[in-house]
Amino acid sequence: MNIVIVGLGIIGGSYAKALMKYTDHRVIGINRSSAPLEMALKSGAIHEAGTIHSLETADMVILATYPAAAVKFIQNNGSNIPPNCIVTDAAGIKGSICPELKDLAGKFGFSFVGCHPMAGKEKSGFSASDADLFQKASLIITPCGASEKAVNKVIELSKVLGFGKITISTPREHDRMIAFTSQLPHILASAYVLSPQCPNHKGFSAGSYRDVSRVASINEKLWSELFLENKEMLLSEIDMFMDNMNNIRKAIDKNDKEEIERLLKKSREVKEALGE
Amino acid sequence: MNIVIVGLGIIGGSYAKALMKYTDHRVIGINRSSAPLEMALKSGAIHEAGTIHSLETADMVILATYPAAAVKFIQNNGSNIPPNCIVTDAAGIKGSICPELKDLAGKFGFSFVGCHPMAGKEKSGFSASDADLFQKASLIITPCGASEKAVNKVIELSKVLGFGKITISTPREHDRMIAFTSQLPHILASAYVLSPQCPNHKGFSAGSYRDVSRVASINEKLWSELFLENKEMLLSEIDMFMDNMNNIRKAIDKNDKEEIERLLKKSREVKEALGE
Repeated sequence: MNIVIVGLGIIGGSYAKALMKYTDHRVIGINRSSAPLEMALKSGAIHEAGTIHSLETADMVILATYPAAAVKFIQNNGSNIPPNCIVTDAAGIKGSICPELKDLAGKFGFSFVGCHPMAGKEKSGFSASDADLFQKASLIITPCGASEKAVNKVIELSKVLGFGKITISTPREHDRMIAFTSQLPHILASAYVLSPQCPNHKGFSAGSYRDVSRVASINEKLWSELFLENKEMLLSEIDMFMDNMNNIRKAIDKNDKEEIERLLKKSREVKEALGE
Repeated sequence: MNIVIVGLGIIGGSYAKALMKYTDHRVIGINRSSAPLEMALKSGAIHEAGTIHSLETADMVILATYPAAAVKFIQNNGSNIPPNCIVTDAAGIKGSICPELKDLAGKFGFSFVGCHPMAGKEKSGFSASDADLFQKASLIITPCGASEKAVNKVIELSKVLGFGKITISTPREHDRMIAFTSQLPHILASAYVLSPQCPNHKGFSAGSYRDVSRVASINEKLWSELFLENKEMLLSEIDMFMDNMNNIRKAIDKNDKEEIERLLKKSREVKEALGE
């Protein structure tokens, strides 16, 4: 296949490197700025630096830009994509872009299969990309009405690139779960490290600090977009979390040891039921 | 030395096993219930199951019970401890017990050196203990007026048992830092997993979920005591955290992308300044 990757950041770059390492497909990179393209070419992560005309002979297009930019790219260049082509993406939210991408697929005749590779690092950009970033990572696929054949093609390729668990979902279910599993932890971590104690933690910290603060090093431009594109679900998760925090806070404030124990026990039981 | 360990839970049990593995000291265990003592004897974690009379020939006593129980133990049995003995503890809070233990040391004539080994697991009890639990772990020492000789003896032994970074602190500084580095993360984790989304996270989660939720499996009896014994500092950390959460929440609610970016950037810069 000719596979065109749009956006050579950490995710697009990792797709390119994984395709090079694990498949014989031809890998063509497209990027707004030229520096990542040159790095990708030099490091052998892509076969060629493409243009929008590379879309005309693409069998698969992987959109690895910010979410809104992915939609815009297809609005502007969708007419270059042939009908037998499968377009997929890598955005961390689905509800706000999948319906539009599905409509554009209908308009231009290609297939669209939404994807969210659950992988990343605390760094961004092509220099952080890695051929093995997706090894054993979870992948969420939102088929959005694409044919079984197209979805299976994406699944097959994803397995070759190293993905572990693959989950089929709807944009709405995806966004509700992601608000909890990914967006809220990033907000917690960011709020956590703003304590005046944080800069002095060394010598007083162990695994709890390390784990909770890990994802506070965040690409603020990408994540502010992701948060706003999933505003409703995210605010609902934040509010539930704050209520649960307030319950524990109140029990501590009242010296109500029994109530603290009851709340902590509930949490422990959730983890234990999950076998974690 | 004759070293008496009071309380053979995960921490006391790990001290016993580490002393057996890395030193030639004689290890004597004391425990309220007999089952852990028998397990410890059988598994070779202690040389003998002691009684309060074992204190009479002790060169060092390690209090590894819950905090309030450690004070009570010394109130009841301190007269059995000889003047040349060093008593140390393992409690996760210091301000509420160290002054009292210091006074008792003065009254009975032995030395008291407060210790907080920053190590643990998501399990508790002797069966979770491990000779290498302290390998590279941080240790916080609150000398509370003990002689340099006594403090150095504790430091020396701690290094032999595998501890890495050793920090000397005051009870007040210890408790302020621990409220941030350890207690708050345990509360966040506990509040986090109460979301109705949590039981369905599999297939939708990756490192962020895993790391933030890790310490939600908590020994509620121990931690409710630790929280209440450090109430003032902990509530202050919770309130700062909630303020920071509210700021991010408000910015999302108002669709204020610039403000979200500004807040996330601040957090990223804290982590970067720490080289994390």
